[in-house]
Amino acid sequence: MATPMPFNSTREGEDLQRLYREVRGQTRVLIAELSDADATAQSMPDASPAKWHLAHTTWFFETMVLLPHDPGYIEFEPRFAFLFNSYYETVGARHARPKRGLLTRPSLEQIGCYREHVDQALTRLLDRPLNPQVRALIQLGCHHEQQHQELLLTDILHLFSENPLRPAYSSVPHRPRPVAAHAPAGYTQYEEATVEIGHAGEDFAFDCEGPRHRVIRPACRLANRCVTNREWLEFVADGGYEKPLIWLSDGWTEVQRQGWTAPLYWWEEDGANFTMTLHGAQSLELDAPVAHVSYFEADAFATWKGKRLPTEFEWEAAAQLAPCEGNFADSGLLRAMPAPGLGSGPQQLFGDVWEWTRSSFSAYPGFRTPAGAVGEYNGKFMSGQYVLRGGSCVTPAKHIRATYRNFFRPDTRWQFSGVRLAEDA
Amino acid sequence: MATPMPFNSTREGEDLQRLYREVRGQTRVLIAELSDADATAQSMPDASPAKWHLAHTTWFFETMVLLPHDPGYIEFEPRFAFLFNSYYETVGARHARPKRGLLTRPSLEQIGCYREHVDQALTRLLDRPLNPQVRALIQLGCHHEQQHQELLLTDILHLFSENPLRPAYSSVPHRPRPVAAHAPAGYTQYEEATVEIGHAGEDFAFDCEGPRHRVIRPACRLANRCVTNREWLEFVADGGYEKPLIWLSDGWTEVQRQGWTAPLYWWEEDGANFTMTLHGAQSLELDAPVAHVSYFEADAFATWKGKRLPTEFEWEAAAQLAPCEGNFADSGLLRAMPAPGLGSGPQQLFGDVWEWTRSSFSAYPGFRTPAGAVGEYNGKFMSGQYVLRGGSCVTPAKHIRATYRNFFRPDTRWQFSGVRLAEDA
Amino acid sequence: MATPMPFNSTREGEDLQRLYREVRGQTRVLIAELSDADATAQSMPDASPAKWHLAHTTWFFETMVLLPHDPGYIEFEPRFAFLFNSYYETVGARHARPKRGLLTRPSLEQIGCYREHVDQALTRLLDRPLNPQVRALIQLGCHHEQQHQELLLTDILHLFSENPLRPAYSSVPHRPRPVAAHAPAGYTQYEEATVEIGHAGEDFAFDCEGPRHRVIRPACRLANRCVTNREWLEFVADGGYEKPLIWLSDGWTEVQRQGWTAPLYWWEEDGANFTMTLHGAQSLELDAPVAHVSYFEADAFATWKGKRLPTEFEWEAAAQLAPCEGNFADSGLLRAMPAPGLGSGPQQLFGDVWEWTRSSFSAYPGFRTPAGAVGEYNGKFMSGQYVLRGGSCVTPAKHIRATYRNFFRPDTRWQFSGVRLAEDA
Amino acid sequence: MATPMPFNSTREGEDLQRLYREVRGQTRVLIAELSDADATAQSMPDASPAKWHLAHTTWFFETMVLLPHDPGYIEFEPRFAFLFNSYYETVGARHARPKRGLLTRPSLEQIGCYREHVDQALTRLLDRPLNPQVRALIQLGCHHEQQHQELLLTDILHLFSENPLRPAYSSVPHRPRPVAAHAPAGYTQYEEATVEIGHAGEDFAFDCEGPRHRVIRPACRLANRCVTNREWLEFVADGGYEKPLIWLSDGWTEVQRQGWTAPLYWWEEDGANFTMTLHGAQSLELDAPVAHVSYFEADAFATWKGKRLPTEFEWEAAAQLAPCEGNFADSGLLRAMPAPGLGSGPQQLFGDVWEWTRSSFSAYPGFRTPAGAVGEYNGKFMSGQYVLRGGSCVTPAKHIRATYRNFFRPDTRWQFSGVRLAEDA
Repeated sequence: MATPMPFNSTREGEDLQRLYREVRGQTRVLIAELSDADATAQSMPDASPAKWHLAHTTWFFETMVLLPHDPGYIEFEPRFAFLFNSYYETVGARHARPKRGLLTRPSLEQIGCYREHVDQALTRLLDRPLNPQVRALIQLGCHHEQQHQELLLTDILHLFSENPLRPAYSSVPHRPRPVAAHAPAGYTQYEEATVEIGHAGEDFAFDCEGPRHRVIRPACRLANRCVTNREWLEFVADGGYEKPLIWLSDGWTEVQRQGWTAPLYWWEEDGANFTMTLHGAQSLELDAPVAHVSYFEADAFATWKGKRLPTEFEWEAAAQLAPCEGNFADSGLLRAMPAPGLGSGPQQLFGDVWEWTRSSFSAYPGFRTPAGAVGEYNGKFMSGQYVLRGGSCVTPAKHIRATYRNFFRPDTRWQFSGVRLAEDA
Repeated sequence: MATPMPFNSTREGEDLQRLYREVRGQTRVLIAELSDADATAQSMPDASPAKWHLAHTTWFFETMVLLPHDPGYIEFEPRFAFLFNSYYETVGARHARPKRGLLTRPSLEQIGCYREHVDQALTRLLDRPLNPQVRALIQLGCHHEQQHQELLLTDILHLFSENPLRPAYSSVPHRPRPVAAHAPAGYTQYEEATVEIGHAGEDFAFDCEGPRHRVIRPACRLANRCVTNREWLEFVADGGYEKPLIWLSDGWTEVQRQGWTAPLYWWEEDGANFTMTLHGAQSLELDAPVAHVSYFEADAFATWKGKRLPTEFEWEAAAQLAPCEGNFADSGLLRAMPAPGLGSGPQQLFGDVWEWTRSSFSAYPGFRTPAGAVGEYNGKFMSGQYVLRGGSCVTPAKHIRATYRNFFRPDTRWQFSGVRLAEDA
Repeated sequence: MATPMPFNSTREGEDLQRLYREVRGQTRVLIAELSDADATAQSMPDASPAKWHLAHTTWFFETMVLLPHDPGYIEFEPRFAFLFNSYYETVGARHARPKRGLLTRPSLEQIGCYREHVDQALTRLLDRPLNPQVRALIQLGCHHEQQHQELLLTDILHLFSENPLRPAYSSVPHRPRPVAAHAPAGYTQYEEATVEIGHAGEDFAFDCEGPRHRVIRPACRLANRCVTNREWLEFVADGGYEKPLIWLSDGWTEVQRQGWTAPLYWWEEDGANFTMTLHGAQSLELDAPVAHVSYFEADAFATWKGKRLPTEFEWEAAAQLAPCEGNFADSGLLRAMPAPGLGSGPQQLFGDVWEWTRSSFSAYPGFRTPAGAVGEYNGKFMSGQYVLRGGSCVTPAKHIRATYRNFFRPDTRWQFSGVRLAEDA
Repeated sequence: MATPMPFNSTREGEDLQRLYREVRGQTRVLIAELSDADATAQSMPDASPAKWHLAHTTWFFETMVLLPHDPGYIEFEPRFAFLFNSYYETVGARHARPKRGLLTRPSLEQIGCYREHVDQALTRLLDRPLNPQVRALIQLGCHHEQQHQELLLTDILHLFSENPLRPAYSSVPHRPRPVAAHAPAGYTQYEEATVEIGHAGEDFAFDCEGPRHRVIRPACRLANRCVTNREWLEFVADGGYEKPLIWLSDGWTEVQRQGWTAPLYWWEEDGANFTMTLHGAQSLELDAPVAHVSYFEADAFATWKGKRLPTEFEWEAAAQLAPCEGNFADSGLLRAMPAPGLGSGPQQLFGDVWEWTRSSFSAYPGFRTPAGAVGEYNGKFMSGQYVLRGGSCVTPAKHIRATYRNFFRPDTRWQFSGVRLAEDA
């Protein structure tokens, strides 16, 4: 994360207090219907228990803010530092990631007390005048917690998908949105141009979103909406998962190794298609964007269609022109929805599903990893990952922006990851 | 298991009711201090969650007794058959063993309702006149549940040992028993003789304990007590874990692969030795029997001492002459204790720790696997396992007898498994 | 091997010279048709290159006999000690087993020079008066080399089976032996008796064949011949590889993990059955004994037939009464042949195929591992292996006897391993 | 490869004949000192046997050129199509890659006959007028064979490095080049500019080298020579392999998993540093460029130095200005050499070692995979790989150019891969 931009305005103190209170409160809301056991289990090494997310985000404030910057702060439980460090080598040893699900103690209730303890200390700290660096760390902690809010939801969905009883995370019933038509997606054309890419200005952004720099964006065309479940069913029906020639070599290896025949969470029963959602098992909604596909699947689909995936620069240049609105976690739907009646230009750039780009996650020109623990935030993951853009139906609305770069390995499927097609103009 | 012996006495109905009530009640007692999360987690594929043990033993009565023999019985939840079948191919598909820890639902409370439901139906059934075969199945179910009572404790210990906080299962404080002296173990000599081995008579026994048959027991000598932690520390100090020549070839492979340097659950801190117990972390009690060693370690220790492990026939012939008494789960100590003042002949044959024998688990002459699901109880495991004898500090007292054959793979360490030495006379 | 029996007769010197010359010469014969590349490749970690067998048996004489007992001996190449030690921890470090196939140097020709060098020194040594211990070591080295002669053939067969061109090891054409009838196998009955088991006397035997001791052999019946390919085809046709209930639990795991559907080296082409042999691809000979089956398959077949495998004691007691004759490597057929017209009592006990017994490889009462490197010969393998008896069509005739105990893991298939059925009387 | 540029000049026929003859002859030269066994063994799945390289390159001409375009051509051995297809899904089934080392037959001599057979047919074909597409395929086959010439050398080096005898591939003695001084590397500065990247024109190039397109190259500085063994020793001495903070997250995982402590092929003996080369074991030459380092090591080294790796565009823009000359395979040295006396600007851009860039291997704007088997040449590998530039001491001189893009996974070490540093200006 490195050098998060400091606040400037005179109203800044108030804003940071509100941000902290809102974010921390929202995390509590997310776990309202989870049992101690639900919050403890870990379904795979890539996922973490809900309890761990609750504690780790709290540990972040304790370790990065309170311990170095609040002389009167008394640690809640010194052994938590070992349990809830994620990957910060700078900070010290840590519990093995694949064993997070074995921590039946501390209980969910005790973790709640831990959060309360840190919240009180942090709130007291925020009442005092703070130097910009401390304010920046608190701000970073809030954005960090928003990331874990999304992961908490994706991880619970994966856990519940492994339970043959297919429990629902949310007791709010899901009501499909009626869609008039399912027209083929149109394309919007862009001419070759030199564009500015990356974050600038004083609002918050992660270090990897900058420095802002100029890039030649070639002439290209972008689809006006995301690929739908209906289109993906055609791909499956046409033997998409059986044709080695449309897959990247590594992708075909994964298809065979993992036995992929459809997106994650899909299954067929008595001729009907279902998918696992945060509302439990649901019929597959044909006009909703396909979700839970890997980069390899996204790339193969695009090849099958005679198209390709966009670069992250093509995506960002288009998104700079669009409002940052969409179906985010705040809607409470927690599921990708069909694109609204198509206006002009690309829709659905924000929300619903993260969009795989063909860009490897790498440093922008002039990027330097900052010193200290926050330097381990993004830079050390710049190999083997692809950039996704735009946020999803489980991303907090205030967390996203046009320059935001998410990244995952190309075989990842448990995120709400989908596809927008592109082609050379 | 196969053809469990039927009851004969006129009082039999009453006895079976009491047995069922006692066993089922004891299982409830065992989980009194566990949280929902404690009861859900699975620390390795060989171990199962407490909740699973609770449900699986209940499923056994439902599937083997109620569904086939009680026409009025209504299943509690048909999907549980898939979740809680352990390994009975005859009975149908089942949930993958390594994923038992992902079943955060049903909750511990719901499992309690399931147990209640089956208990009520079983109790009603036991009020009626029953044919011997049904009675035998209920009796088998009780002994089956006793086995899982022991596993529940060994599995919780393993789970808690994986938690850096090292929680205690039992809030009862552990008080070491004062021991006057730690004399070297004497040996008892036996001459060559033809002995009768295996179960006979009408009491309950598992199928693999019979048929009773004659065996030539060679002249030999058996140690009068189990190997102690003090002796094992000498083995460690002498480089026992670094000398390939005293190990079986497969054992040496495991030493290197798993990095063994001491029994499971041992560690050193500031020059003192500790071990993880059901009472949490405890100082190593020097005169208590060593526990949590594999067959490979037991064999290497014996070779280092210039001795060997006993065969299961040597052990059983000696145990036929001893009372079936010792430190079992019923004592509530839940930890192996130093041998009492040494009387004449072998002490500690029963209780404290299971004793590895050098006998592979195999069929006695004339053994045949019974038909049906109960035929899958023991026979299909007759490869790659070694026999252990005598029960441990977490075995129910009523579960054990001189003919009882426990069996585990030679690299197993999470059971309360220890060592008694033997030698040729 | 420990304490190989010394020679006693006055003619002993001459005998040992002849034994050495014959055995060493026979090894040379075995590789006459192999190229340098054939002799270098290693098809799996369990198998070794022919060149390695040639060098390792030579290294054995050099290390165990010449270096300690011939003061004037000059090592051929000191670095060979590292390359060609198999598993003797006493002797020092060694090359990683799975990498034996990477030793393209030394060449086959250079290995020939190494053999020549050692043969000359050994022959000179044998001209001198030798103490009994040295004579015993030389004798052991000859029997050791005979074991590797068999392994050389089984390993070459495995290597050639991995080559889609299916080359033949032997250019001698294979002519099936006409068989009049394929009567079902009869059984020979044995009453309960106390029998003497194990080696006694002054002829050579491996340490694990003794001490001779008394065992109660229960009443039983043994099949008069081995199970045939014809019978195995019935097993396959009846879905033998698809019925979990007839398999040991570990066996069923292997069936699924390795995808077994028939013995190793079998395949079907255009409705006809073929098998890979040392003569290349051949039609399956229906009345020949089935070969290349694992213990797990042998056990499942027996269960399917309502029989069981014999114990090694049952086998040995029967074999004590039979002449030690059969289809060994010396016949040059190098393939299991149909049983000859059935006489009275068990036929084919020796030769054709090794017969799996249900006995785990373990120590006889009073067995002790000898000191020194030869102590690593057998004892350290006494876990996880089953005993096979009787030798095969690739075993040297002079190598076998009624007390001989071969042993392999229960999933092993590349040896010439077959099945004789037994049942309780 | 897709659409290799056709020849235009009138002298083209003659040129192609000479190219074919030279390339094929050069391959023969490379194996002059290898035995049949040397040419058969495979030291890891990523490497192939020399024999396989010889046959596969021949198979390429047979399958892509002769079978479709020479009606009179008679296949040498139809079963070779299965054995020697590398990864062309379009062309049909193929032998499992990790089992290439088991093909002891056909022999090296038979492969020679196969090459002869195809050479005769191809030479006859080249005497006839050919359409541009066929000519392009033959040209592609020649460049393909040059790639395998380099791989043959890197694979033999790896094989010989696994042999404790450390044989030399080349009997030509290695003479170190005296170097006057080992000045620190200077840097050459470049200003931000729009540069043209990628192949254009009518000379041969692989498909992934185009289309030529414009890119904004930011202001930057490039080192004037490659990182040397001397500098790498400082990195090792400073604990470079023990500091997680300078490594990419995936890189640190590899360091621990594989136990890296130095470049591949390095070892220490009695305080001196050695490395395995095609001349056998050699003292480490301090001023020669470090070779056999992975991308992860290159990146960690750069971070440790406070620098970074160049992008492939930065490299190519600099290389466009330099002559395509250097220490290639044609020099016969077969080892990276110290940079010559430093002139102005970057030296050593070509030859000695491939230079890792921080650019993931991906498609240039407008790139499309061609139809047919040649379409499987590059495009399907565009995930998980990094671009290397400039060729090495085992690359044929005529094979390389400024636009040439080599690519390997970031953990690859057996290629002659090294490091040039860069930094932001």
